[in-house]
Amino acid sequence: MNFERLPFATIDHLRPITQGHQEVIFCPGTTRADPAQSEGLAQRYPRAEVNALARTVFLAPDPEPVPTGRGTILVCTAGTSDLPVAEEAAVTARALSNTVERLTDVGVAGIHRLLSQTDVLRCAGVIIVVAGMEGALPSVVGGLVKVPVIAVPTSVGYGASFGGLAALLAMLNSCASGVTVVNIDNGFGAAAAASRINHS
Amino acid sequence: MNFERLPFATIDHLRPITQGHQEVIFCPGTTRADPAQSEGLAQRYPRAEVNALARTVFLAPDPEPVPTGRGTILVCTAGTSDLPVAEEAAVTARALSNTVERLTDVGVAGIHRLLSQTDVLRCAGVIIVVAGMEGALPSVVGGLVKVPVIAVPTSVGYGASFGGLAALLAMLNSCASGVTVVNIDNGFGAAAAASRINHS
Amino acid sequence: MNFERLPFATIDHLRPITQGHQEVIFCPGTTRADPAQSEGLAQRYPRAEVNALARTVFLAPDPEPVPTGRGTILVCTAGTSDLPVAEEAAVTARALSNTVERLTDVGVAGIHRLLSQTDVLRCAGVIIVVAGMEGALPSVVGGLVKVPVIAVPTSVGYGASFGGLAALLAMLNSCASGVTVVNIDNGFGAAAAASRINHS
Amino acid sequence: MNFERLPFATIDHLRPITQGHQEVIFCPGTTRADPAQSEGLAQRYPRAEVNALARTVFLAPDPEPVPTGRGTILVCTAGTSDLPVAEEAAVTARALSNTVERLTDVGVAGIHRLLSQTDVLRCAGVIIVVAGMEGALPSVVGGLVKVPVIAVPTSVGYGASFGGLAALLAMLNSCASGVTVVNIDNGFGAAAAASRINHS
Amino acid sequence: MNFERLPFATIDHLRPITQGHQEVIFCPGTTRADPAQSEGLAQRYPRAEVNALARTVFLAPDPEPVPTGRGTILVCTAGTSDLPVAEEAAVTARALSNTVERLTDVGVAGIHRLLSQTDVLRCAGVIIVVAGMEGALPSVVGGLVKVPVIAVPTSVGYGASFGGLAALLAMLNSCASGVTVVNIDNGFGAAAAASRINHS
Amino acid sequence: MNFERLPFATIDHLRPITQGHQEVIFCPGTTRADPAQSEGLAQRYPRAEVNALARTVFLAPDPEPVPTGRGTILVCTAGTSDLPVAEEAAVTARALSNTVERLTDVGVAGIHRLLSQTDVLRCAGVIIVVAGMEGALPSVVGGLVKVPVIAVPTSVGYGASFGGLAALLAMLNSCASGVTVVNIDNGFGAAAAASRINHS
Amino acid sequence: MNFERLPFATIDHLRPITQGHQEVIFCPGTTRADPAQSEGLAQRYPRAEVNALARTVFLAPDPEPVPTGRGTILVCTAGTSDLPVAEEAAVTARALSNTVERLTDVGVAGIHRLLSQTDVLRCAGVIIVVAGMEGALPSVVGGLVKVPVIAVPTSVGYGASFGGLAALLAMLNSCASGVTVVNIDNGFGAAAAASRINHS
Amino acid sequence: MNFERLPFATIDHLRPITQGHQEVIFCPGTTRADPAQSEGLAQRYPRAEVNALARTVFLAPDPEPVPTGRGTILVCTAGTSDLPVAEEAAVTARALSNTVERLTDVGVAGIHRLLSQTDVLRCAGVIIVVAGMEGALPSVVGGLVKVPVIAVPTSVGYGASFGGLAALLAMLNSCASGVTVVNIDNGFGAAAAASRINHS
Repeated sequence: MNFERLPFATIDHLRPITQGHQEVIFCPGTTRADPAQSEGLAQRYPRAEVNALARTVFLAPDPEPVPTGRGTILVCTAGTSDLPVAEEAAVTARALSNTVERLTDVGVAGIHRLLSQTDVLRCAGVIIVVAGMEGALPSVVGGLVKVPVIAVPTSVGYGASFGGLAALLAMLNSCASGVTVVNIDNGFGAAAAASRINHS
Repeated sequence: MNFERLPFATIDHLRPITQGHQEVIFCPGTTRADPAQSEGLAQRYPRAEVNALARTVFLAPDPEPVPTGRGTILVCTAGTSDLPVAEEAAVTARALSNTVERLTDVGVAGIHRLLSQTDVLRCAGVIIVVAGMEGALPSVVGGLVKVPVIAVPTSVGYGASFGGLAALLAMLNSCASGVTVVNIDNGFGAAAAASRINHS
Repeated sequence: MNFERLPFATIDHLRPITQGHQEVIFCPGTTRADPAQSEGLAQRYPRAEVNALARTVFLAPDPEPVPTGRGTILVCTAGTSDLPVAEEAAVTARALSNTVERLTDVGVAGIHRLLSQTDVLRCAGVIIVVAGMEGALPSVVGGLVKVPVIAVPTSVGYGASFGGLAALLAMLNSCASGVTVVNIDNGFGAAAAASRINHS
Repeated sequence: MNFERLPFATIDHLRPITQGHQEVIFCPGTTRADPAQSEGLAQRYPRAEVNALARTVFLAPDPEPVPTGRGTILVCTAGTSDLPVAEEAAVTARALSNTVERLTDVGVAGIHRLLSQTDVLRCAGVIIVVAGMEGALPSVVGGLVKVPVIAVPTSVGYGASFGGLAALLAMLNSCASGVTVVNIDNGFGAAAAASRINHS
Repeated sequence: MNFERLPFATIDHLRPITQGHQEVIFCPGTTRADPAQSEGLAQRYPRAEVNALARTVFLAPDPEPVPTGRGTILVCTAGTSDLPVAEEAAVTARALSNTVERLTDVGVAGIHRLLSQTDVLRCAGVIIVVAGMEGALPSVVGGLVKVPVIAVPTSVGYGASFGGLAALLAMLNSCASGVTVVNIDNGFGAAAAASRINHS
Repeated sequence: MNFERLPFATIDHLRPITQGHQEVIFCPGTTRADPAQSEGLAQRYPRAEVNALARTVFLAPDPEPVPTGRGTILVCTAGTSDLPVAEEAAVTARALSNTVERLTDVGVAGIHRLLSQTDVLRCAGVIIVVAGMEGALPSVVGGLVKVPVIAVPTSVGYGASFGGLAALLAMLNSCASGVTVVNIDNGFGAAAAASRINHS
Repeated sequence: MNFERLPFATIDHLRPITQGHQEVIFCPGTTRADPAQSEGLAQRYPRAEVNALARTVFLAPDPEPVPTGRGTILVCTAGTSDLPVAEEAAVTARALSNTVERLTDVGVAGIHRLLSQTDVLRCAGVIIVVAGMEGALPSVVGGLVKVPVIAVPTSVGYGASFGGLAALLAMLNSCASGVTVVNIDNGFGAAAAASRINHS
Repeated sequence: MNFERLPFATIDHLRPITQGHQEVIFCPGTTRADPAQSEGLAQRYPRAEVNALARTVFLAPDPEPVPTGRGTILVCTAGTSDLPVAEEAAVTARALSNTVERLTDVGVAGIHRLLSQTDVLRCAGVIIVVAGMEGALPSVVGGLVKVPVIAVPTSVGYGASFGGLAALLAMLNSCASGVTVVNIDNGFGAAAAASRINHS
């Protein structure tokens, strides 16, 4: 049988022809997968990888095939509080058959941390930049590279952050031309877009 | 001499090594190039192409080289009122050395106009979707193709459109995964992003 | 006796002359009927139908009379997350003496699901379209039919959905002329409006 | 020939089969038809009716056929400043083959003006209520009648009216169940919706 | 001793000369007095009147003196959900030495309920009108009377009510001249303002 | 004849019984009376008083009767830029038969200017406080007096003033209990409310 | 060893050369340090000072060195509800090696409380003003002194306070020139800015 | 005589004792000094310096005294469109007796332009950072220096810049601790604050 019904999801064991990748057990919504759901899946599928930070459960094929994406998708993170969204993006990108790398905690208030990694940035095929608060990192990254940059605002912050609105508006107004933006905390969408680019 | 100073801009006749494309005479701001500026440039550079709709002036190299981008950038427009932004995107994409095609007036209220063009959509390498009002077109396009889709909200509309905010929010919340968004009326930015993808 | 007092509501067993329909046990507010309330009513009225999704309790007359509305009210839903609001609309419309049909999970990102149901859409007397996120479905439906279309934005989404604001603005700016809108998550109001139309 | 091209519009002299009504020379956008456009059309088509308040130009068939709509569409206006939007609705409704009546300047601050017209309200098939400022009129009307009520917020007001936002929000939160809402200043859309109802 | 320290408040047993009234045990903030606080005060002061709806505790002087305010302060309420705010206003007004009357559940969707009470409205010295949702009641009341009308928006509603913003904006844009407004849910402030008027 | 029709207004020469005051030639809207209108009225009615700052034209009865209001209405202004709104309030209050005094340019950044006028404040029967920018003046005035205080936010300011929103929100959140608020720039409404109080 | 890893933080026992001050155990985020974290740190470091109001834990060097800042940082508070933010500022300023003084509950509705402390205000080197609700205190303080004034809006308030937005906008629009603003509830940031000034 | 009255301003030729600096002919408001005003002043005061970009007119004492501020105020600008606000700050700071330097066009999309000027940044006593669009520059500057940083958001941008709101929110959420913010386009206020710091 090609799929299996659980109380809250239907797992598709057949890799769809139309989309070219295996099923991602992605639990969308405001809360993603809660611990009970993750544990239930992990017990049933011992090979499933639970990423507590990303709130994802990933059941990779065995053996996991070589990624089909052309280049590497680099997931850059401004601060440690942005990691849940960044990990959601990284897990999704891997599940969509891409090679993924991470560059963490390189926010603009300590700009030399980012600049020391310029080579890493320039080797990537697509860059996903995850940042909350003032959302400035995509502008700096966009000015350093020629490859596509996808900005993900996060709801990290308080007060006049307004749940990520500040970062979202900043990213939409980036002075680095060629930066595109997805919804607040939408690591999944950023990875889907990056994978489209990486497979085009 | 490699550049020429005008009262309001500096035209760079040397195609920069670092960016890989000739100078685009782009006049950013809220108003873009006004008629007086366009006429002044057109008189001085008889070969310059003035696009009144896009409010751009483009001085192509002679002969114009073969585009370096891998595929075609398709610029889709929901309604005729969105054409100025769409044309700004199209002219910019051509200036950045991409092959450009257009698909105009295919808004979702007459969905069969779009569906009859599915082949055109699926042949594109990158699709820029320009829409005002409810900004629904990118979601439909994103569901029809696998290639990257860049959504451009426009300020077309009135009342609760709030200057393009309605379309912007709709596009950020697209249920078609993998759609990314640029600023309201930012045809230039969408083309720059599409060109990054098309050259990656 | 014509009514019965409960601690939190007064159930009217007399179908009012002025409104032409039996009493709907509708529990307005942000939370609708909670499980304890539903269970209490169900124990007291064994014939009451509890709709957990809609958070409604409906006590139909016995026997339930033939609906007085002229045509069918069709409740269309973009995604499964929109079902609570859609069910509230469907239960309310039935309670107001209308024939109700449902068309579920026909969001615009997979447009062929909707188009395959064009006949169903065109047979309806009034259509209620329930959608969250980018709220695009009413525009497509409005372009396919001539009958009245009532759009219900839902608070489904996160980040820049802003609790349903994105869908609300999209629906107010629909390019399909003749679409009207009710408050976010207001399935009850949409059904009341549809029933007014269906009885006019 | 079935249509005629003007510099700014294409007039369709053939009444379309698919829509069931003659062409409305409607000039959408924030400004509607300006005086120069109206005068140009009036000179070319001596029979065209120019409504300066509504900023519409209407070329009725000769002879004008009997309206096909079932009942009367009543256009209620809260104040004289709301008349441009109300007239746009009235002209559009007539052009879509409906009988139209008007009830003007019956705002809620002088509630007896409205109550003295209860009979007029109850004879209508559909009621369009146009109001700016606090947008309260649809709630009162909705409580007086059983027929469908379409509320049109206008941008009449200043300060915390925020271009009609105050009236829009009030109408979306109407405590009279069954009131639906269109975009700010969208008299055209209200008439299109009313006509759908009146022909259903 | 003139005052008494509790863990969360200081009760002033001396009626201040400067303000002309006894101490109101008012617990401001988002939550007002919670049940534990109310019970603690009630046990210590057996004569204290706990108003669970208003979340107030009032310790009247014994004997309670004749009110010093010139006329009656009438507290009008649109719906039963607005009662907590209305009761806060009523208790505060009494504590500030005013005669208080109530008129409850006279919202505009059933306008005859209000109109049947026109005599009551016209006998009042000051009227406080408490309403959520579309906040229309103050406009109607303001048009019926000549006395000062203070409007209190409440956070009753959901979706596009935005926590009372819809009612607040409506009241600020009232077409009945001479209506003034206080903060959302601010029954205390409305009563303080009414008492200033009633003692002027 | 009791009234006279002009192209843009109807002047009522009969003092209405129901309202107790002569006709105020008030020109509401965003622009109030423009210079051409004022001049036209001034030429026709030589006794009319044109207040260019307030954009009002006032035709007082001859002789002007003794004000019927109980006390003095004091119009306080934070800065000179707030004068147009303050003058609109002052002219309206006089037209509604009240004694009016003015206290100008006493903003909180130079608090001693206000404190030196405490006696003037305490002699007033009602105080209208007009302020833009941060809108702080009503809180300070409200803490100095016991009489009713009506706050009028103005659109004076720029940037994050957002057309008077900053002052409006500040006034609604005043920590001085008993301050009520009218719409942005609504000097007319403040005077109408003050006159209601002064005649109660 | 220079630092010590805890499950949720890394305590740096080495005073960094680059920043010139010892490690502040500051727990940023929306919740600051919760009671469990505070207690854990207090048990491990008996000398740590837990400030329950500020939700901070401070481990001062032993002996605590003389502050290096030039003058005194005065933390002014409008109301007692603003104390948590004010204490966060005070503790942070001390940890950054500044002399700190406090002036509490001097809000503008009782302006004489502030004016009696003018000498204290004028002796400070930098003043941090913490206020919620209408956020008026910084304007008054800024008009009384020549030294730098940093305004901190707090989320104290309800309704149209919108989580501190009212106070934030008021402070940004202060008519006292030379007042600067930090994020809502950002006592830490205000202290960091004040310390920069005090060490410049 | 110590001052001179013009139709629109009063020029104070006496340097006030209380403020310690000569009169700045600053023309506040949304438009600052228009060309006619500037020209009028320039003709009357041949020594007045008209800064067309800043829209200021400055009449320096002769001879101009040595600045009394301790250090240098550095005005940093992200882009050329931000120059009007930056120049207003620079002229104001000079008029308030400070030494002023400028660093122009060092926005974050070309980060090396800024980093090559680190020495200039670190020599300043106070830094004013002027930026529109995404407003990211203050965060980077704040991370590079220890001195006070005052961020000025500008209204440069379009669409989702919302008149400078995007930059304002970004700056309020800066991850570089110790950055403070003034109102949108408020170069004058930033200079006043910087001068307070430079004279403390």
